[in-house]
Amino acid sequence: MIEVGIIGATGYAGAELVRILLRHKDVEIKWYGSRSYVDEKYASVYRNMFELVEDACLDDNIEELAEQVDVIFTATPQGYLGSILTEELLAKVKVVDLSADYRIKDVATYEKWYQIAHQSPQLIEQAVYGLCEINRGLVNEQTRLIANPGCYTTCSILTAYPLVKEGLIDPNTLIVDAKSGTSGAGRGAKMANLFCEVNENMKAYGVTTHRHTPEIEEQLGYAAGERVTINFTPHLVPMNRGILATEYASLVKKADGTYPTEAEVRAVYEKYYANEYFIRVLPKGECPETKWVEGSNFVDINFVIDERTGRIVMMGALDNLVKGAAGQAVQNMNLLFGLDEKEGLELVPCFP
Amino acid sequence: MIEVGIIGATGYAGAELVRILLRHKDVEIKWYGSRSYVDEKYASVYRNMFELVEDACLDDNIEELAEQVDVIFTATPQGYLGSILTEELLAKVKVVDLSADYRIKDVATYEKWYQIAHQSPQLIEQAVYGLCEINRGLVNEQTRLIANPGCYTTCSILTAYPLVKEGLIDPNTLIVDAKSGTSGAGRGAKMANLFCEVNENMKAYGVTTHRHTPEIEEQLGYAAGERVTINFTPHLVPMNRGILATEYASLVKKADGTYPTEAEVRAVYEKYYANEYFIRVLPKGECPETKWVEGSNFVDINFVIDERTGRIVMMGALDNLVKGAAGQAVQNMNLLFGLDEKEGLELVPCFP
Amino acid sequence: MIEVGIIGATGYAGAELVRILLRHKDVEIKWYGSRSYVDEKYASVYRNMFELVEDACLDDNIEELAEQVDVIFTATPQGYLGSILTEELLAKVKVVDLSADYRIKDVATYEKWYQIAHQSPQLIEQAVYGLCEINRGLVNEQTRLIANPGCYTTCSILTAYPLVKEGLIDPNTLIVDAKSGTSGAGRGAKMANLFCEVNENMKAYGVTTHRHTPEIEEQLGYAAGERVTINFTPHLVPMNRGILATEYASLVKKADGTYPTEAEVRAVYEKYYANEYFIRVLPKGECPETKWVEGSNFVDINFVIDERTGRIVMMGALDNLVKGAAGQAVQNMNLLFGLDEKEGLELVPCFP
Amino acid sequence: MIEVGIIGATGYAGAELVRILLRHKDVEIKWYGSRSYVDEKYASVYRNMFELVEDACLDDNIEELAEQVDVIFTATPQGYLGSILTEELLAKVKVVDLSADYRIKDVATYEKWYQIAHQSPQLIEQAVYGLCEINRGLVNEQTRLIANPGCYTTCSILTAYPLVKEGLIDPNTLIVDAKSGTSGAGRGAKMANLFCEVNENMKAYGVTTHRHTPEIEEQLGYAAGERVTINFTPHLVPMNRGILATEYASLVKKADGTYPTEAEVRAVYEKYYANEYFIRVLPKGECPETKWVEGSNFVDINFVIDERTGRIVMMGALDNLVKGAAGQAVQNMNLLFGLDEKEGLELVPCFP
Repeated sequence: MIEVGIIGATGYAGAELVRILLRHKDVEIKWYGSRSYVDEKYASVYRNMFELVEDACLDDNIEELAEQVDVIFTATPQGYLGSILTEELLAKVKVVDLSADYRIKDVATYEKWYQIAHQSPQLIEQAVYGLCEINRGLVNEQTRLIANPGCYTTCSILTAYPLVKEGLIDPNTLIVDAKSGTSGAGRGAKMANLFCEVNENMKAYGVTTHRHTPEIEEQLGYAAGERVTINFTPHLVPMNRGILATEYASLVKKADGTYPTEAEVRAVYEKYYANEYFIRVLPKGECPETKWVEGSNFVDINFVIDERTGRIVMMGALDNLVKGAAGQAVQNMNLLFGLDEKEGLELVPCFP
Repeated sequence: MIEVGIIGATGYAGAELVRILLRHKDVEIKWYGSRSYVDEKYASVYRNMFELVEDACLDDNIEELAEQVDVIFTATPQGYLGSILTEELLAKVKVVDLSADYRIKDVATYEKWYQIAHQSPQLIEQAVYGLCEINRGLVNEQTRLIANPGCYTTCSILTAYPLVKEGLIDPNTLIVDAKSGTSGAGRGAKMANLFCEVNENMKAYGVTTHRHTPEIEEQLGYAAGERVTINFTPHLVPMNRGILATEYASLVKKADGTYPTEAEVRAVYEKYYANEYFIRVLPKGECPETKWVEGSNFVDINFVIDERTGRIVMMGALDNLVKGAAGQAVQNMNLLFGLDEKEGLELVPCFP
Repeated sequence: MIEVGIIGATGYAGAELVRILLRHKDVEIKWYGSRSYVDEKYASVYRNMFELVEDACLDDNIEELAEQVDVIFTATPQGYLGSILTEELLAKVKVVDLSADYRIKDVATYEKWYQIAHQSPQLIEQAVYGLCEINRGLVNEQTRLIANPGCYTTCSILTAYPLVKEGLIDPNTLIVDAKSGTSGAGRGAKMANLFCEVNENMKAYGVTTHRHTPEIEEQLGYAAGERVTINFTPHLVPMNRGILATEYASLVKKADGTYPTEAEVRAVYEKYYANEYFIRVLPKGECPETKWVEGSNFVDINFVIDERTGRIVMMGALDNLVKGAAGQAVQNMNLLFGLDEKEGLELVPCFP
Repeated sequence: MIEVGIIGATGYAGAELVRILLRHKDVEIKWYGSRSYVDEKYASVYRNMFELVEDACLDDNIEELAEQVDVIFTATPQGYLGSILTEELLAKVKVVDLSADYRIKDVATYEKWYQIAHQSPQLIEQAVYGLCEINRGLVNEQTRLIANPGCYTTCSILTAYPLVKEGLIDPNTLIVDAKSGTSGAGRGAKMANLFCEVNENMKAYGVTTHRHTPEIEEQLGYAAGERVTINFTPHLVPMNRGILATEYASLVKKADGTYPTEAEVRAVYEKYYANEYFIRVLPKGECPETKWVEGSNFVDINFVIDERTGRIVMMGALDNLVKGAAGQAVQNMNLLFGLDEKEGLELVPCFP
C-alpha cells in the first residue's frame, strides 16, 4: 500500500483527493492535514465522509509527515510549499504539489505574476510539470516532485496543444476564453462567492492578469519552440464544477495557400490523443459540455474551422476538481509508483 | 459474469443504472433497451458515456431479452411491465422493476391511485418489495421479481420505519413533506420542466394525490401492524438530484406519561440501522443534506424531538437516482445473485 | 416628499428598500447607513445602483438621522435597535424596524428565543406589528414604531390566518414546513452560504428552535383567541429569493360531524382576502410557486383538503425580500403617512 | 393612450413585453396574441399575471389587429412576419418586430444564414434597425417598421461600437465570445433545455454558424465603413437571464507607433455613451456582471487593455429579455410615438 499524506485536506481540492483515494485500491490515507480544523474529525468538516473516514485532522507538520508516508499531496495556498520544502524532505518522500509553486521554470515570471518571493528556487528545476499526457515520460519512480498543473491550464493547454505542436495554428494569435464553476474559488468564506452573489450571474475576472496565463504560455511555448504570448480570460459561472475553454487562433496556411481541412486537423488531434484514455476527442459537430465529464478525469475536446475568418475555434471541457486538480494528481501518483495510470480514476461521469 | 439487460436505458434512472453497472465487477450489460433511440449509439444519447459504451440502443423485446440475459432491469412507464410480464418470462429471467407495477399488493389500491387497469395481477404476490434494509430476508437466489421502491418512498419509509415499528410514534399522525430534485421528473420534453420554469422556483405538486402515498402507507402499515393513513406532499426543487423528507409525527407517551427521550429514540434507530452500511444516522444536531449523499447509495437520517408540541421531526436525505432508483436496484440484484450487497455500490458521495 | 433614512442599507433587505424607494414618487432617500462601508459610494457596494445612486454610505448615527428625516428604516441585527431606541427619538421620527426587536409583546419570550436581554422593553407596547392585511387599522399617522414582520412569519401567518380566525382548523395541530431562498441568510461572508455549499443542496435548519416560531404563535394566538403552539421548520433552498410555506392542520368538524367543504374554506379565504391587493388566492388546483411572485409584494395562497386524513394542506408563497421584508416595510410607511398603501409597490412579478 | 397588440405574447419575450407595458403610463394592451393558447386566460399561461391581466389570448389576426391598435409588437418565429406583412398593413399600424425578418438589409445574407426565403424583401429597405443608441435619429413618428435587434447582437455591437467607429480597433480581428442565460432559448418544450440538461452545465453552440453573426457584421460594418468579418460564439449558461459578451480585438497603433491608452479609449466610450441613460460605462477595474443589470434596460460596459498582446478585451452585460428584446422594443416604441425614450423603462436592476 502507498501511504499518503494530504496537506490542505479540507479545501475542495483536498476533499476531492480524499474522495478519489478512498477508492484507490493501492492507497491508504494516513494524514488528513488541515491547519483550520486540527483535531476535528474529518467527517465533521465534510459530512459526505461520515462513516467513511474516521480520522481527525492533523496540523501541517511536513517533517513528521515525510517520515510516515510515501507521498505527500499539498493542496495549499501559493507560496506555502515553496517556503517549507527542502532537498532533505524530497530525499525522504515524494511530493505532488497542487499549488503553483513549482509549475513555472522562470522564477522571475513566477514572482511577477504571483507577487511572491520564491523561497526555494533551487528546487524548481527538478520539478516535473505533471501534465501526464504531455510529460508522461518524465514522471517515473525516480521523480520526486510533481508540479501538478492548474485547472484552467490543464484545460487550455490540452485543447490547443496538438495544433501548436504541429504548427497548424499561430500560437501568438491564441485567445483562451475560459469559464469555470465556482468550486475553483475555494471554500474560503468570501462575500463574492456567496450563493446569492454567484447564482444567476456571470462575469469575467482577472482580465489580462490571471496567474494561469504564464503557465499556459510557458507550456505552449515548449510545444511551439518559441516564446508565446496569449490572451487568457477566466469567467465565473453559476455551477459547482466544470471548466469550459473556448479557444480561438488563426490557422497557418499550408504551402499551397489553403487552410488545413477539418480532416487534417482531426488527424493531428488523433495523432496525439487517440491512445489517451482521459482525452476524448468528440465526433464532428459535438460541442464539449462540462456536465458530460463531471466527476471524472476526462477532458472532452473538439473544434470547428471557420473558413470565413481563417480561424479555428477549439473547445475543451473538464471537471476542475478532477482532471483539473485531484484526479490529475492521482494520475501523477500512479506514474510515480509505477502503477497503471488509470488506477482509481476510471470514474464514470455523473449525469445529470 | 451476470448478464444484464435494461429496458428503458435512456431515461435518467436507466442512465444511472448504466453508470453504476459499468463499474460493477460481476456484471456485463448486454442490452441497452430504448424505444425512442433504437439503433442510435447509446453514447450519442448520453455523451458522458462516450468511449465507455460502444453499444447501440435496441428495441424493447422482452421475449428475446429473457433468453439472453440473467436479469432484466425495467425503468419503464407505469403499466408497461404489468402489460407484458408473464410467468413464462419469470421462469427464464429475474426482473428488477423500477416502475410501480408490482409495488402495491392491493390491486384495487394500485388501480385507484394510478388509474391503470393492472394486466398481470396474478404476479403481484410473488414480487418482493425491494427495500433491502427491511426486506433483505425475502430477496435471495430463489426470488424472481423485485418491485424496486420509489424514490420518495424509500426516503420516507426508511426515515420513519424504526419508530413506527417500535411504536414510538402514532403512524396516523405522520406528515411527510418531501422535496425532490428535478431528475425525478424524467427526461421527457415538458414545458414545466424547462430550466427557466424550474430554476429560481419552488412549488408543491400532486398535493394529497401523489402516487407514492399508498406505497408509503402500505409499507408503514406492515411495520405498524395496522392500516396507516398519512399526508404526503412532494415539492420540486431547483437542483438535479436529491430528496429530502421532513417528517412529522406525534410521539406516543410511555407508560409513565412522559415522551421518549432523545437517547431512547436514538437507540431505536441504532437497533435497526447500526449495521446497515447504506443508512447513516447522523450525530445529534446534524441535519441531513442532500449534497452529502449525492452520487452515492447512502440515506442520511436524523431527528429532533419537540417537547413543546409532543412531536418528533424526522429527516432523511438520499440521491433519488441512486438509493431512490438505480442504486437500490443494483443492491437488490446483488442479493438476487448471492453477491455482497455493497458490490459496485461503495460510491463516495461527491461534494461539492 | 417623505425624507427617509436607512440604517443597514447594505444588507440584502436594505438594498431592496433602496430598489423600491428609488421609484417611490413621494420619497427621497437621505441617508444610506452602513457601518461596514462608511464613506464608500453606495453604488460601489451594490453595482446595480451605478448611476442611480450617487450617495456615499454614512455611519449609523440615529440621533442625527432623527433630526434629518421623517422616517427611519432599520435593517439591523437583532438587539441593535432595542439598544439605541428611545422615547425621545420616537418623538422626532417614525421608525419601521425590519429586525425582530419589537415584534413579540412578551419580553420573556423574546429573550428566551433570541438569547438577548431586551434594552428597551418599555417601547414594545406601542410598537404595531406591521402585518398590514391584519393590523391595517393600527397603522396610521399617529403610529410611531412599526415592528415589520419577518419573512417566514409573514408567509406562515397569512397562509393560515383566515382559517384560524374562523375556527376552521385546530391551531395546535398546525405544522409549518417552510422553504426559503438563500438571500434570507444575509450578505455576511459565511462558509455555509457559499455558492458551492448551497447549490445542488437542500437541508432543514433550526429545527424546533427557529426564532420565527414564537412570532407565528403569538399572532395566530391573537387570531385563535388562545395560546397556540406549533411546529415550524425552515429549509434552505438553492435559489436567491422566495419563501414557500406548506402548512398542515386538522380541520375542525362542523356541528353535523362533517368537515368543511372546499367551497366553505374558499369562502373564508375570500372573506378576508378578496379585497386585498397583495394577497392572491389562486384558483382551485393551482399550487403557489415562488417564481410567480418574484420581485413583487404579492403573496400567493391556496389549499387542498385531504378527506382521507381530515387535514388541510395550505400553501403560501412570497418574495422574502419584498413582502417578507422591504416591500412590507414600504407598505407600512405608506400607511404611516396616509398614502395609498400600494404606492411604489405595484411591482409586476418577473418571470422567468 | 397608445393601443398595443402583441403577436406572440406567450413566449418569454412576449411575456416580458407584458411585464413592462403593464406599468407604462401611456400604453394599453389590447391584444394578447398567442396561437398556442387561444381563448385561454393570459394569466393562466403566466400565473405571475394573475389578477393583473384579465384578458384571454387571441389568435394571430394581423389584419384585424391593424385596425384596432396603434402599434403591433411581433415576438414570433423567424420568417413569420416576413410572410404576412404588407405595405397596406404598414399604412395602418406601426410594427416593432422582435424577430430577425427585417434586420438584415442584404436579402441574400438573410436567406443564407436563416435558410428561409424572404417573403417580403420589398419592405426591408424602410425598416429601421432599432438599436436606439446608434440609430435614434432614424426612429420617429414617421417610422413605420422597426427591426428590433437581437439579444446577442445588441450586447455585442454596443460593446465594440465606439472603438470600431473611431478606428481604435481592427474590426476584422474581432472575436465575440458570448454567454447567455437560458431564457434566450425560448419556452418551447425541448429536451436540451430541460432543467437537468442545462443546470450544472455549460457549452458552446452554433459555433461559426449562429444567425446573429451577420447582424453584428452588418452593423459594425456600417460603423467601420467597410465590410467586417468576425467570430461569434454563443454559449448556454445555467441562469435564467443575462448575456455577457467578452470581446477581443487588436488595437490599431497610433501614428507614433504606440497603442491607445486606457484614458484615450475611455474617452471614446464617453464620447458616444456619456449621455446615454441605458448605457453605463463602468469605472476602471470593474467587470460587468449580468446580475447587476437583471430586470433593467441597462447595458454595462467596460474594457481592459492588454499591452502584452496589443489587444483590448471589451465586456458588455445586459438582460437578454429587456435591453436584448422587450425593453429595447418599448424604447423604440417610445421614440415612434414621440415619448420620452425612458418612459416605462426606468427599471432598477434587481439584486440579488
